[in-house]
Amino acid sequence: MPTRRQCANAIRVLAVDAIEKSQSGHPGAPLGMADMAEALWRHGFKHNPSNPDWPDRDRFVLSNGHASMLLYAVLHLTGYDLSVDDIKNFRQWNSKTPGHPERGICPGVEMTTGPLGQGISSAVGMALAERMLAVQFNTPRHTIVDHRTYVFCGDGCLMEGVSHEACALAGVWKLGKLIVLYDANGISIDGRIEAWCDEDVGARFAACHWQVVGPVDGHDAEALDGALALARADADRPSLIICRTHIGFGSPKVDSAACHGAPLGEKAVADARRTLEWEYPPFVIPRDIYADWDARTAGEKAEAVWNTAFAAYRKDCPERAAEFLRRVNGALPKNWTDIAGNMLQKIKDGRAATATRTASKNVLDHLVLHLPELLGGSADLTGSVCTFAQGSESFAPASCSGNHISYGVREFGMSAIMNGLALHGGFIPYGGTFMAFSDQAKNAIRLAAIMGIRVVWVLTHDSIGVGEDGPTHQPVEQLAMLRATPNLLLWRPCDAVETAAAWKSALENRKTPVCLSLSRQNLPFFDRSEAQTEAVARGGYVLCDCEGAPELLLLATGSEVSLAAQAAEKLVALGRRARVVSMPCAEIFDAQDAAYRESVLPDKVRARLAAEAAAPDYWRKYVGLDGAVLGMPHFGASAPANDLYEHFGLTVDRVVKTALELLGA
Amino acid sequence: MPTRRQCANAIRVLAVDAIEKSQSGHPGAPLGMADMAEALWRHGFKHNPSNPDWPDRDRFVLSNGHASMLLYAVLHLTGYDLSVDDIKNFRQWNSKTPGHPERGICPGVEMTTGPLGQGISSAVGMALAERMLAVQFNTPRHTIVDHRTYVFCGDGCLMEGVSHEACALAGVWKLGKLIVLYDANGISIDGRIEAWCDEDVGARFAACHWQVVGPVDGHDAEALDGALALARADADRPSLIICRTHIGFGSPKVDSAACHGAPLGEKAVADARRTLEWEYPPFVIPRDIYADWDARTAGEKAEAVWNTAFAAYRKDCPERAAEFLRRVNGALPKNWTDIAGNMLQKIKDGRAATATRTASKNVLDHLVLHLPELLGGSADLTGSVCTFAQGSESFAPASCSGNHISYGVREFGMSAIMNGLALHGGFIPYGGTFMAFSDQAKNAIRLAAIMGIRVVWVLTHDSIGVGEDGPTHQPVEQLAMLRATPNLLLWRPCDAVETAAAWKSALENRKTPVCLSLSRQNLPFFDRSEAQTEAVARGGYVLCDCEGAPELLLLATGSEVSLAAQAAEKLVALGRRARVVSMPCAEIFDAQDAAYRESVLPDKVRARLAAEAAAPDYWRKYVGLDGAVLGMPHFGASAPANDLYEHFGLTVDRVVKTALELLGA
Repeated sequence: MPTRRQCANAIRVLAVDAIEKSQSGHPGAPLGMADMAEALWRHGFKHNPSNPDWPDRDRFVLSNGHASMLLYAVLHLTGYDLSVDDIKNFRQWNSKTPGHPERGICPGVEMTTGPLGQGISSAVGMALAERMLAVQFNTPRHTIVDHRTYVFCGDGCLMEGVSHEACALAGVWKLGKLIVLYDANGISIDGRIEAWCDEDVGARFAACHWQVVGPVDGHDAEALDGALALARADADRPSLIICRTHIGFGSPKVDSAACHGAPLGEKAVADARRTLEWEYPPFVIPRDIYADWDARTAGEKAEAVWNTAFAAYRKDCPERAAEFLRRVNGALPKNWTDIAGNMLQKIKDGRAATATRTASKNVLDHLVLHLPELLGGSADLTGSVCTFAQGSESFAPASCSGNHISYGVREFGMSAIMNGLALHGGFIPYGGTFMAFSDQAKNAIRLAAIMGIRVVWVLTHDSIGVGEDGPTHQPVEQLAMLRATPNLLLWRPCDAVETAAAWKSALENRKTPVCLSLSRQNLPFFDRSEAQTEAVARGGYVLCDCEGAPELLLLATGSEVSLAAQAAEKLVALGRRARVVSMPCAEIFDAQDAAYRESVLPDKVRARLAAEAAAPDYWRKYVGLDGAVLGMPHFGASAPANDLYEHFGLTVDRVVKTALELLGA
Repeated sequence: MPTRRQCANAIRVLAVDAIEKSQSGHPGAPLGMADMAEALWRHGFKHNPSNPDWPDRDRFVLSNGHASMLLYAVLHLTGYDLSVDDIKNFRQWNSKTPGHPERGICPGVEMTTGPLGQGISSAVGMALAERMLAVQFNTPRHTIVDHRTYVFCGDGCLMEGVSHEACALAGVWKLGKLIVLYDANGISIDGRIEAWCDEDVGARFAACHWQVVGPVDGHDAEALDGALALARADADRPSLIICRTHIGFGSPKVDSAACHGAPLGEKAVADARRTLEWEYPPFVIPRDIYADWDARTAGEKAEAVWNTAFAAYRKDCPERAAEFLRRVNGALPKNWTDIAGNMLQKIKDGRAATATRTASKNVLDHLVLHLPELLGGSADLTGSVCTFAQGSESFAPASCSGNHISYGVREFGMSAIMNGLALHGGFIPYGGTFMAFSDQAKNAIRLAAIMGIRVVWVLTHDSIGVGEDGPTHQPVEQLAMLRATPNLLLWRPCDAVETAAAWKSALENRKTPVCLSLSRQNLPFFDRSEAQTEAVARGGYVLCDCEGAPELLLLATGSEVSLAAQAAEKLVALGRRARVVSMPCAEIFDAQDAAYRESVLPDKVRARLAAEAAAPDYWRKYVGLDGAVLGMPHFGASAPANDLYEHFGLTVDRVVKTALELLGA
């Protein structure tokens, strides 16, 4: 019977062989963490390789994603749909085994990782989702939600500030089922970390009310078992297990940054084989080791037990069971069409001239009552970003009740946690901050876009309309930044109706995160025909048209649409044929068929003027070389908002003047 | 004689009166921190209000920048060039007293703050600059650099992860002259913080090797004196003084989030006046309180003492003294033209076909030897981002020697610290990371742009050329994000010569931060005429031209320039007149006169094709509605770089094909 070390070594050799074959990758971490992986995955990790979607599986996040080969090796060995050929294709085009783990590409990978610090942070969201779902769905007689979230992370993850933001919240939230195994090998890419990282990590986590276990020898299987037992036994505190390990364990480059990010080389791999006493050729794992790793039978049994329990739950509480399945499957309520229709009708009938941040709250007043999966929050700006709706209740850490979270001043941590909530399933997270601070959240927004998950960012105070708070609080380039991000929808609605359409789009797009760009200041309400109201969902449409074929196109979004509309009126009064196009979501407009796009923006009309209180260059896409853009090619300033619009020339008169120039008048 | 409390109350009433007059602002924090400000600024703070540029002044950073009125009141009372009329103009257009403190607008404001967490983080950079300059310039007989860096910060700053990143480094670096006064009022915008922030802040900082002083009563002047004395006495550890305060002290809204971000209202202001026993009308400060605050005479004396010491230093070490003044004034060396010229010549003669990250190192090999103010570093990617040059020496915390810092995996913290180094003066900081992780640094880059300071980001691995590491490590939208940021130069050089020009531009632009976008992969070298080499500095120029007037313009940057050049050759061979425009810095090109721009991009040539392995929309600015862009409208993937270029269609053949389509061929 193979020893535990031999089982761990199977990970090691698969990792170094795959990295050697692809001549690219990170051998040091898989070599260092293989014993940790053996201790976790072969002893008490609840999963079913045959069904990576089992809702009550334990979650595993490899926060130091460069150790991807460790995870692939484990998934292969335990019996996931990942063959040795897949392992051989490591880091090749179209393989299941990309350089860093990617959700949706490799079965069993819960989350795309690589940007350090975000895995552990999103894992906090997963653990929170588990705890909240358990409160919402378990009954005194039935426990259908009861699983843990495990994380492997390295020094790099803990140096990144986002880990502090999220782990502080994990402590407040008493996420006892979150267990982090910290690969404390003392080495990062630049070398031994003491010269840039000498903090007492245990004390830091204890200060945030975590249980700190260890340091333990991360190569001692029994010590790891004991640490995991302690971690599992603490129901009230998340646990950090400090595992002292040797990066590159077993290789001649052990304990050196040299083994971090480059193949070991043929000779070093041969040396490692000798040191590890591993006598098999590349990619060959002996049958008895495969057998010892194989988790399929145990996994199927575990899921069967749960299935039986769930069947009993369904019998006792059929509606609750159905609702549970709906929630974890991410389906909207059956009567969603009615819910959305009523909401839109109500907003339309309201004809309210409000700030779009308020319009968003009005929408949420409706939606939050009907969608228990909506889990709101803000980065300590709840009143300003209007995320707390009628029907919202503040999240209470003790009882884990509520549906609105005060995340504190932690835009990045909030965003990573929202990603984790969405990844876990059962929730549609939305969270608010000022748009200028979407900067801090940017890489988490990007990661949501890469993963294709449903998360909504409520970004208010979206221009110089912020006013007195000044340039640090006035976004300028953030719209360009978010629009340039692939698989991300940026909605900048001009009034309450467009805001409602934006929210509808956000909830219906399951595989695309959404950023809402909302105004601080009041905006007018636009009356629309039925056809126009429907056209909002196409991302761009004719809001005000002239008689006859237009000779001038005025494009605008959000707070600048009313400028364009007023200017168009003046131009029409001057006998010019101006059309106003509202473009609340350019990405969706671009995805419409050519005929529709041409119907809105006729190619031959080249007198085109865009107005948006943001970095102007983006609009060249629609106005071309012969058009003009009125925007903000510089930072804002501190003054009342109306003064800023005036001083920076975002006025009806300037739109009219520029339009007439374009028309050669 | 006024009491210390009365002196503090002068701050309080100026703050609430100014906020009331402008009907906008944050009264809670100035009311809460006024006693802390009195204790610091009237007792031991070294400054000269008549010369805010005195190099050896203590630095003060208001990290919770929304408390701006506290700082304005102190600057006014101590005698800076800030009148009571300036105070009355709080938050108005063109005033010296914007909503958040802005460097360069108000004398005595060391740094623009507002985005929480960055003030304290940049202060770490300031304190490091002081310590390094002291090591570099003080002698056994002469101490010309000897000042402290003080910070006020609140709960919000400490919740932000960037504060963890920077403060961990402050501990490693033993910045004993960094003193943070933490306004622990237990309230943030969403209310009492326990539900989202219950960490033991003292334990957290102790874990990072700070001296933790207190908690002390932040309204007890003597307690604050004692705490400050302890802090000043510890030469080896930065100090955190935990000050328990009451937000909104003296007002009826004390201890409530309600006083955080909105004017108190007329009645509450009147109540506060009664509570504070302040009997004077708005904006009136009694003469004796002004007299007690006035720091001009003491400040002039203090500076005079330093001037005498500096004169003695100059006498003993004239060259060193001159060099000190050059360094703190931010002037390049007198022989800069020669240094830059030789460097450029050497690079040009080298004709090296290298990755531009390597070209950047080759440039640094030259520059680092000649510019001791260059202080390099990386976020734990030193080998990959090529920031460590010949002449670089690793920073050693114990001796504070060296000129290259391993910042650890902390892109945001590194960037905020670099800002602090530049703000302090004496250094030109540059720091490297992968371009994809410029996301994490974004808001610090933005703040550098708002402040107009000389900081250089070395962003390598700037496209799918990253290859196997996959989409999390391949930037797509980052170029658009950085180009859209005002007052920021983004250079994406195509070869060694352009890389040298980029570095030259970065060092010569004192008021504009620069991001360098550099390739991981090797790129060819282009031979240029003398005129072409000079034209690189104009941001965009004709790299390869056809015979006669061009009928097609091919625009490209960085790694895609060679695609364009090869395609142009093929097109010329097919009898087409194609011109290749290299556009390494579009912002600089846009700032050229119209005649030059027309000479490069003739308006009438509308067959225009841009190629860049990034989000494509930006290029519509140059190719218009009738051109085409070959770029990356989606995320990348994990595979060898060449495979990715092929699969994503960034090939010579596709450039040729698309060009011919544009030409109607």
